[in-house]
Amino acid sequence: MKKYVYSFDEVPKPNTWEWIFKLGNKGAQLAEMTKAGLPVPPGFTITTEACNEFYKLGKRWPAGLEKQVKEAMKKLERKTGKKFGSDKEPLFVSVRSGSYVSMPGMMDTILNLGMNDKTVEAFAKLTNNERAAWDSYRRFIQMFGNVVMGIPHEKFEEILDEVKRNKGVENDTDLDAEDLKEVVKRYKELVKKEKGRLFPQDVWQQLKMAIDAVFNSWNNPRAIAYRRINKLREDAGTGVNVQAMVFGNMGNDSGTGVAFTRNPATGAKEHYGEFLLNAQGEDVVAGIRTPQPIDAMKKILPKAYKQLLKVYEKLEKHYKDLQDFEFTIERGKLYLLQTRTGKRTAQAAVKIAVDMVKEGLISKKEALLRIKPEQIDMLLHKQLDEVAKKEAQLIAKGIAASPGAAVGKVVFNAEEAKRIVEQDPNEKIILVRTETSPEDIEGMHAAQGILTARGGATSHAAVVARGMGKCCVAGSNDITVYEKKGYFITKDGLKIKKGEWISLDGSTGEVFAGKLALVEPKLSKEFKQLLKWADEYRKLGIRTNADTPKDAKIAREFGAEGIGLCRTEHMFFEGQRIKAMREMILANTKEERRKALAKLLPYQRKDFYEIFKVMDGLPVTIRLLDPPLHEFLPQTEKEIKELAKEMKVSVNKIKAIIKALEEFNPMLGFRGVRLAIVYPEIAEMQVRAIIEAAIKAKKEGIRVKPEIMVPLVAHATEMKRMRELIEQVAKEIMEKAGVKISYKIGTMVELPRAALTADELAEYAEFFSFGTNDLTQTTLGYSRDDAAKFIPKYIEEKILAADPFQTLDTSGVGQLIEIAKEKGTKTRKDIKLGICGEHGGDAASIEFCHKVGLTYVSCSPFRVPIARIAAAQAAIKAGKR
Amino acid sequence: MKKYVYSFDEVPKPNTWEWIFKLGNKGAQLAEMTKAGLPVPPGFTITTEACNEFYKLGKRWPAGLEKQVKEAMKKLERKTGKKFGSDKEPLFVSVRSGSYVSMPGMMDTILNLGMNDKTVEAFAKLTNNERAAWDSYRRFIQMFGNVVMGIPHEKFEEILDEVKRNKGVENDTDLDAEDLKEVVKRYKELVKKEKGRLFPQDVWQQLKMAIDAVFNSWNNPRAIAYRRINKLREDAGTGVNVQAMVFGNMGNDSGTGVAFTRNPATGAKEHYGEFLLNAQGEDVVAGIRTPQPIDAMKKILPKAYKQLLKVYEKLEKHYKDLQDFEFTIERGKLYLLQTRTGKRTAQAAVKIAVDMVKEGLISKKEALLRIKPEQIDMLLHKQLDEVAKKEAQLIAKGIAASPGAAVGKVVFNAEEAKRIVEQDPNEKIILVRTETSPEDIEGMHAAQGILTARGGATSHAAVVARGMGKCCVAGSNDITVYEKKGYFITKDGLKIKKGEWISLDGSTGEVFAGKLALVEPKLSKEFKQLLKWADEYRKLGIRTNADTPKDAKIAREFGAEGIGLCRTEHMFFEGQRIKAMREMILANTKEERRKALAKLLPYQRKDFYEIFKVMDGLPVTIRLLDPPLHEFLPQTEKEIKELAKEMKVSVNKIKAIIKALEEFNPMLGFRGVRLAIVYPEIAEMQVRAIIEAAIKAKKEGIRVKPEIMVPLVAHATEMKRMRELIEQVAKEIMEKAGVKISYKIGTMVELPRAALTADELAEYAEFFSFGTNDLTQTTLGYSRDDAAKFIPKYIEEKILAADPFQTLDTSGVGQLIEIAKEKGTKTRKDIKLGICGEHGGDAASIEFCHKVGLTYVSCSPFRVPIARIAAAQAAIKAGKR
Repeated sequence: MKKYVYSFDEVPKPNTWEWIFKLGNKGAQLAEMTKAGLPVPPGFTITTEACNEFYKLGKRWPAGLEKQVKEAMKKLERKTGKKFGSDKEPLFVSVRSGSYVSMPGMMDTILNLGMNDKTVEAFAKLTNNERAAWDSYRRFIQMFGNVVMGIPHEKFEEILDEVKRNKGVENDTDLDAEDLKEVVKRYKELVKKEKGRLFPQDVWQQLKMAIDAVFNSWNNPRAIAYRRINKLREDAGTGVNVQAMVFGNMGNDSGTGVAFTRNPATGAKEHYGEFLLNAQGEDVVAGIRTPQPIDAMKKILPKAYKQLLKVYEKLEKHYKDLQDFEFTIERGKLYLLQTRTGKRTAQAAVKIAVDMVKEGLISKKEALLRIKPEQIDMLLHKQLDEVAKKEAQLIAKGIAASPGAAVGKVVFNAEEAKRIVEQDPNEKIILVRTETSPEDIEGMHAAQGILTARGGATSHAAVVARGMGKCCVAGSNDITVYEKKGYFITKDGLKIKKGEWISLDGSTGEVFAGKLALVEPKLSKEFKQLLKWADEYRKLGIRTNADTPKDAKIAREFGAEGIGLCRTEHMFFEGQRIKAMREMILANTKEERRKALAKLLPYQRKDFYEIFKVMDGLPVTIRLLDPPLHEFLPQTEKEIKELAKEMKVSVNKIKAIIKALEEFNPMLGFRGVRLAIVYPEIAEMQVRAIIEAAIKAKKEGIRVKPEIMVPLVAHATEMKRMRELIEQVAKEIMEKAGVKISYKIGTMVELPRAALTADELAEYAEFFSFGTNDLTQTTLGYSRDDAAKFIPKYIEEKILAADPFQTLDTSGVGQLIEIAKEKGTKTRKDIKLGICGEHGGDAASIEFCHKVGLTYVSCSPFRVPIARIAAAQAAIKAGKR
Repeated sequence: MKKYVYSFDEVPKPNTWEWIFKLGNKGAQLAEMTKAGLPVPPGFTITTEACNEFYKLGKRWPAGLEKQVKEAMKKLERKTGKKFGSDKEPLFVSVRSGSYVSMPGMMDTILNLGMNDKTVEAFAKLTNNERAAWDSYRRFIQMFGNVVMGIPHEKFEEILDEVKRNKGVENDTDLDAEDLKEVVKRYKELVKKEKGRLFPQDVWQQLKMAIDAVFNSWNNPRAIAYRRINKLREDAGTGVNVQAMVFGNMGNDSGTGVAFTRNPATGAKEHYGEFLLNAQGEDVVAGIRTPQPIDAMKKILPKAYKQLLKVYEKLEKHYKDLQDFEFTIERGKLYLLQTRTGKRTAQAAVKIAVDMVKEGLISKKEALLRIKPEQIDMLLHKQLDEVAKKEAQLIAKGIAASPGAAVGKVVFNAEEAKRIVEQDPNEKIILVRTETSPEDIEGMHAAQGILTARGGATSHAAVVARGMGKCCVAGSNDITVYEKKGYFITKDGLKIKKGEWISLDGSTGEVFAGKLALVEPKLSKEFKQLLKWADEYRKLGIRTNADTPKDAKIAREFGAEGIGLCRTEHMFFEGQRIKAMREMILANTKEERRKALAKLLPYQRKDFYEIFKVMDGLPVTIRLLDPPLHEFLPQTEKEIKELAKEMKVSVNKIKAIIKALEEFNPMLGFRGVRLAIVYPEIAEMQVRAIIEAAIKAKKEGIRVKPEIMVPLVAHATEMKRMRELIEQVAKEIMEKAGVKISYKIGTMVELPRAALTADELAEYAEFFSFGTNDLTQTTLGYSRDDAAKFIPKYIEEKILAADPFQTLDTSGVGQLIEIAKEKGTKTRKDIKLGICGEHGGDAASIEFCHKVGLTYVSCSPFRVPIARIAAAQAAIKAGKR
């Protein structure tokens, strides 16, 4: 018979993927902790396979499971010396879910299982704490009633609140045993009323129902949404962990808490966490009561605090990474309930990784592999401007739960947040809630940042926000949130309504009224260290896509080794330039066109000169004019009239030209090299500007390395023609100036035909730069501007694993890159190969580029550090294989 | 020293490409004729190499050329017993151009060279025909003055006309020697006046200048245009043929003519050609005087006629093909001036090829290879409706110079014709001229047909029109054309102005007023024979693209072996259907959509049933809905209002939906399988319609072979999903009906990614049909709707060899087809591979499909016979290698 149940101490290799998949992360962790000698309450795990079998069998237990559970329970009884359902020495257990990856708050958990009208009495006697016993019982009924039987949480809370109100007290802890008995009585009545059946008194029935509930929770909507957002496996299933209960609510020598071995927000090596005196664990995670910081234990529970310090040490030594753990103190003895690799902010991830190398815990390679490149994106994003902060109105402070900055309009409802951003992805919103719950996940995903009035550093909002790399200020007691009415009120009586702007500083916990200015981030010394290490390992060069000296400068500071894509069209939009550009487009003859182009020349030359100056010593790849000409023409009636007046032509003439230039599929239209073939004078002007700028720079001692890139080439004949044109213009200018510039000529490979005929192109191109945006559009036949109509559905339906505009489609587009590499190299051994689409800053795509053996990737300035890390990771991973 | 000059009798292998390239077609022909014992006047050829050297040297003769020409002239003097420039026995020569392919009328020719004030007198004495001598002299001055010295032809004609007018005569032949002396005198004055120099009297200088002129004529604009239109080599150069003159203008025992060995319009084995008594050859070709039919010679010049009959025989026996030749009769003796493979109409090409097989001259394979598939296109195009002709107004008759029908608006100017059609390729025009000249080529190309008032069956208009496969009625004496005034007048006084419609019947020479109806063509028995032979050799299957039972029927009659592409969207546009379709698009819910689709079901089912009936026993490939939904919505304000009223929704709602469905790049948008994934109910309805129609047909004994084709697939996951959907729907219906239909499921391969991942697609697809239209768009990044902005320029600039939407881009798109074939076959050995883009009817593309080893090509019904021939040619050519 298949083994579905493993006691914690009978798992051979809990720290392997095989066992993590089999038991779920939590089950494997418990076994691992047991193995490591940590003070874990005994228990057993039902495998994820049992969960999958359960679904296969139409929600029935597989054969043998029941028997194995019973046996494991017997074993547990032996270990604890207690008996399940006994009215003398009753055993209580927790029943928890746990898949191969932790999904905080996503699935359901039952505590105190085994409580009934008899065992509660026994428990009271044994512990000599009637109040704790009845409190546990009422908690159990509430949790079981909600999670297993589906009665809304609020209905229980109402009863509890009423009893407190009647008694005139504020806290749960102010209720005594008699009060709690009253609560239990009314809870049971509620169950009867809602479900038409009595609350189950048979403990085995309780266990069976709880295990069913955990299995079922794998497919609740929250869990499905979480898996989709986090790209987790659908077929993994959940394990079920049944563990002897220990009780933190047995008086003031008891308590419960959650802690991190280091600060998960900053990475600092300090005690981080919270505990609640005389409480059960779920109170902490749910964020309902605001807990005390961990250091407060030193005074209140000094013995337990010492045990905790030992646990801290043991955990980091054993796991060699940040641990996030839950503990319970039962009458002064500390138990470790669970531990897992702690989620952390990007900032913390970097600091912890670098510190641990210094502490000798891990190697540099391990440190690099620990960083999720996407996560560190936020380190490179803007922060609130310190000057603006000084002048701004500070309206509240809360816990700095997840660093970074967020500026947005206030929204109080997660669904609304999601809808607003779906309708306009440019909308910036901040989700403000009393507290968040798993139902809010998608709204949090849509928001710039999260602000809550209740809950601490390990509350749901804080944990999820850190996981998402989103700014979060949690548990701000300064505000009161009225979700339904659509506003919140600060302690100063200020009312902030839906749609008003606020700004959050997640690193300080400050909340400001209004829309504060943002500034560029500064890199921490640890981050700089990590990037240096990345440079030691990576094989790929890292360049940047930059069109202005400013962007080029930022990128260079971030470590860019050149410009991989300088788009020249962006240079044509300002003031006088757009006028000259339009004159050029409206020209009737080559003569007129040349005249207009002559006006553009000085601008372009200056642009290039400035960029060369910033990139002194590094290559600068300049792409010739790419977009269709109609992009430069005015769109509205008013603009057209103005232009007509200015250019002294009729409105109708301009309209006729706009009409003539209109295209059905501009993406596949008259653009790129096609413009240069039909109007070579445009390309001539641009080449002139590049070479003249280079000459000026060189004369000033700047080391210029221009690379002229021809866009949208499909045929080698195009490239041949352009090479002739470029060489002729350059030669003429250089001869006249008496200065020689060494430059390269290459092409964007952004059409399938270019990739397929790369051997021919390489005759005329010294480098290829894969324009993976357009190459994705043409290879897949997806218009980036239109594909939103079906891509979300495609991802939902699993037709696509990821958005191909974010993560390179390696089997299609990637195959073309491989073909182009092979063919290009055949013709020209030393051909330079780069990638300059959005994918150049995407880690998975960078890994592909490394594997294929490209020369460099080029990405936006703020992704340069990410690319450095990702490139190092790719090299390290490849080395391992 | 390089040999630049070859006498006709010293060419070793004139019938090889080596010597044709070296000497030009005409030079090689003269040598070949000489070798074959035909009565050719002696002479020599200057090689094409000399012409190319001439251009390389900046229009100077290469070293040695002058010496070799002089030597060859000496040899010619010895052979003829005459002397160049002699005042006793003067030798006169013709100087003609000739490249590797005949370019009729494109380059310049000089006759009677060697005439001057002295030799004319000697010639007069020798021939005892003063008139002929002076006539030759005046012709020479006129031709030399025009061609070599650049004086307009009209200026000479004015002088000639004035002399005739003064004398009160109509024909050139009515002028006597004295008149012609007057003409010569005034011609010389004209030369002096125009050029400021005397007409050259030195015969060697004449020869040098004439050879220069022939060299220069290689690059005149007419020749360049002709080469572009006919896709001839730019670098071939022209040979120069210098040949002893024989004279057809030596009295009424002399004459000149052109003839074909068979009728080049119909292919009939009959004497075809014309001659002019007492005239020089250029008069015939230029079409200035209307000549007599060849059979008239029998009476007028019986001895020469007998010699001609022998020449006819010798020519066909030697060349085994239709010959087009020029001859001159000098005092009763017939000389063959030149012969070449005769251009012919498609109809004639087919008949001659089939007849020659029957006569044992050539093999079936040779017959098949002789047919240009593009040329026979016209045999499959429409002809004037006989019924309409009876009711129409016959306004003129002319020579049936090139068969077929043309209906169009009258245009009198070639440049205007070209411009009109460039602006709107759908414009139908007929070029009407008194006579055409080489300058008119591009206008003729643009026209549907050509009508001339002067010139015969071998006039410029007739020859060029036949070459182009265009309908032509030539030399209609019933009309007088006033080009500049913009009208022509018929013999009945009817005035037809520019822009009015006329209709031509090129097979009968009839001209009708108005826009006559056209009918489908009938295939001649020879054509049917040829198609049968084609079927013996071809390996490729031939299917058709047909969306209606009518088209399917036509295609089947033309020999289609199945439907390769039945587009279902065309079925949604009529009456009630478009209403239901719009209802479907406007639906808010799946429920509403299903309701609207249910209305479409009966229409679709009936469509498919009718098609199955026509295609009984043959496969029918049905493509599921492909275009973006916005194509079905109304465009104008008025239509939108009507629809709103009809659908009982607000105008704004419809506008909002239209706006929501708008796309930036519809070609790459929400269409094809993407619709079926997002709205599976659409595909379900279509599959239901197909299977239900098939069941109905099968029950009636029709052998149905449906093939369901999924469009625009990029990912195997899409194909997997669709296969599941199709199989499920089909299974359900078949089980309910108790009838089993055997059907196939496949996909269009029309995106690069599909081709690149064909191995994955083949898991779920039993056939691939290459949609080469879209595959060309995506592979090259060319929008078919927009590419007109640069494709013509690209072809002109030789960036592209051909329009990739007409002729398959084998190195790009073709490479993807090869990749898909290889990968697809790896997964599924018996996968069916077809092509269903426009290229399926293009000969060059079909040859590629044969080479790659596809199963079939599918093309429009009228191209099915072309495809059969092209497929046979591909197989025969491949067999030869």
